[in-house]
Amino acid sequence: MTLPERVCIVEVGPRDGLQNESVMIDSAVKVALVQALAAAGLTEIEATSFVHPRAVPQLADAGEVMAKLPVVENVRYSALVPNQRGLERAIEAGVTRIAVFTAASETFARRNINMTIDESLAQFAPVVRDALAANVSVRGYVSTCFECPYEGQVDPGRVKSVSTALLDMGVDEIAIGDTIGAAGPGDIQALFEQLLRTIPVEQVALHLHDTYGTALVNVYAGLLMGITTFDSSAGGLGGCPYAPGAAGNLATEDLVYLLDSLGIKTGVSLESVFAASRLIATALDRPLLPSKQFQRLASRCERP
Amino acid sequence: MTLPERVCIVEVGPRDGLQNESVMIDSAVKVALVQALAAAGLTEIEATSFVHPRAVPQLADAGEVMAKLPVVENVRYSALVPNQRGLERAIEAGVTRIAVFTAASETFARRNINMTIDESLAQFAPVVRDALAANVSVRGYVSTCFECPYEGQVDPGRVKSVSTALLDMGVDEIAIGDTIGAAGPGDIQALFEQLLRTIPVEQVALHLHDTYGTALVNVYAGLLMGITTFDSSAGGLGGCPYAPGAAGNLATEDLVYLLDSLGIKTGVSLESVFAASRLIATALDRPLLPSKQFQRLASRCERP
Repeated sequence: MTLPERVCIVEVGPRDGLQNESVMIDSAVKVALVQALAAAGLTEIEATSFVHPRAVPQLADAGEVMAKLPVVENVRYSALVPNQRGLERAIEAGVTRIAVFTAASETFARRNINMTIDESLAQFAPVVRDALAANVSVRGYVSTCFECPYEGQVDPGRVKSVSTALLDMGVDEIAIGDTIGAAGPGDIQALFEQLLRTIPVEQVALHLHDTYGTALVNVYAGLLMGITTFDSSAGGLGGCPYAPGAAGNLATEDLVYLLDSLGIKTGVSLESVFAASRLIATALDRPLLPSKQFQRLASRCERP
Repeated sequence: MTLPERVCIVEVGPRDGLQNESVMIDSAVKVALVQALAAAGLTEIEATSFVHPRAVPQLADAGEVMAKLPVVENVRYSALVPNQRGLERAIEAGVTRIAVFTAASETFARRNINMTIDESLAQFAPVVRDALAANVSVRGYVSTCFECPYEGQVDPGRVKSVSTALLDMGVDEIAIGDTIGAAGPGDIQALFEQLLRTIPVEQVALHLHDTYGTALVNVYAGLLMGITTFDSSAGGLGGCPYAPGAAGNLATEDLVYLLDSLGIKTGVSLESVFAASRLIATALDRPLLPSKQFQRLASRCERP
């Protein structure tokens, strides 16, 4: 059982987290959050989304936020982009990395983005082409790679074909999403055994939700499969619509704690991520829960 | 990466859980809890403790509880026993399996049981001898096998020598305890790589606390090392004195959920364990938290 020496954490809290929060956050606070995350050592930060402002009012200030983000050495800000119009706005705002998104489950794609998977791939192909032409690199999200809330178990073959289609377009990294947090470590192993036969492990990231408390064990299963890029959200930012009271995204604090304990380098300071989480928790006026790391840090109880 | 086909869960909630609860619980409720746990399919249940009533007033009714437990096929009730007097009381109450306990950290042993490790082994040797002579089988707990709140990292060699001493006395199973929940999966792997060179895997159980949210990833690391016996506590019963708001013992619901997802047989019904947890949560007049499984079940939100 060999583990990677170093892992890259993609911080998605400012986008994937905040888009699920109903309390409207000032642009200045969002900028402060991203700055605090960069200060914590996170080098890949998904800062906002150029979806239509009516679709996600919380992120209507995407251009403003991007414009205000200071350049920090080795830190890359990215933004979600749903279509050609979004790409134009992103390029206008100086974005150098975007993310596009589809799903591995047909029903989820229809309900979430109102397209078939093939339609979504057809729509994103010119977006990716134009992005690359403008020197903007592209990440691809694939949702519901393990279980779909409508269809149940998802065929790993579907995940592979969608991922391959995105890579063929010029996407440089696929974020394999356990959208509802229903995967177990056996599912992680089974999927990657299939995917990694043809897709280089360097092009794969794991995007986990901690709905049922299995995100960390799934990270470990991913590490054992050689995965070196993991998405997470400071403080577990972003609720989960399917399980009231349960966290949505895997908390960055939990991820860093596990990687620290395994001696895997991340360059990220747990305490400083927590400082960033407190900043946004204060703005949201709610504790970010239920991350045990968060509770531990919040109680200022030193690890005994 | 091969996983065991079947795992035995040792339910420790009625003892290890309740001994940490300050609200006094009626004997009848304790009996109902154990019955509900047996009905859920748990076959190994640590039902109480024959420590001195002044030391743990909550379990002063050990004899009464044991006497009232109905015989259930394939279900074995056990009890913690600290010394010769405890063994006498346990045998009087008809107990057929006891557990003795020491630690791998010298400072923890002194503070927790007011003896050196060697003194504790010397004290338990005649207890184990007399138990076996009375056809009572014996389990041994070793606390602080990974990290000690006073000494820090614990040498795996110490864990091995203490475990071997207990096995040499006639103890048939060693519960390797991560008393403060500070272990990570790398620590689990490292310790068992040492232990299992001389100790048969069938004689080892893993006793985890979920203080920092890493219990399930540690279970997975244990499964990968071939461990097939895990301790847990219904609803995560039993607080953790070191991290306010954090759970103590690994919740049985979390453990069963993970094992179910891996297709590993336990014979235990998640929903029925939860029914048992609700019973005791009602008696304690507090929610048993923060187990995400518990929250999920409590919200009656079906796995989508």
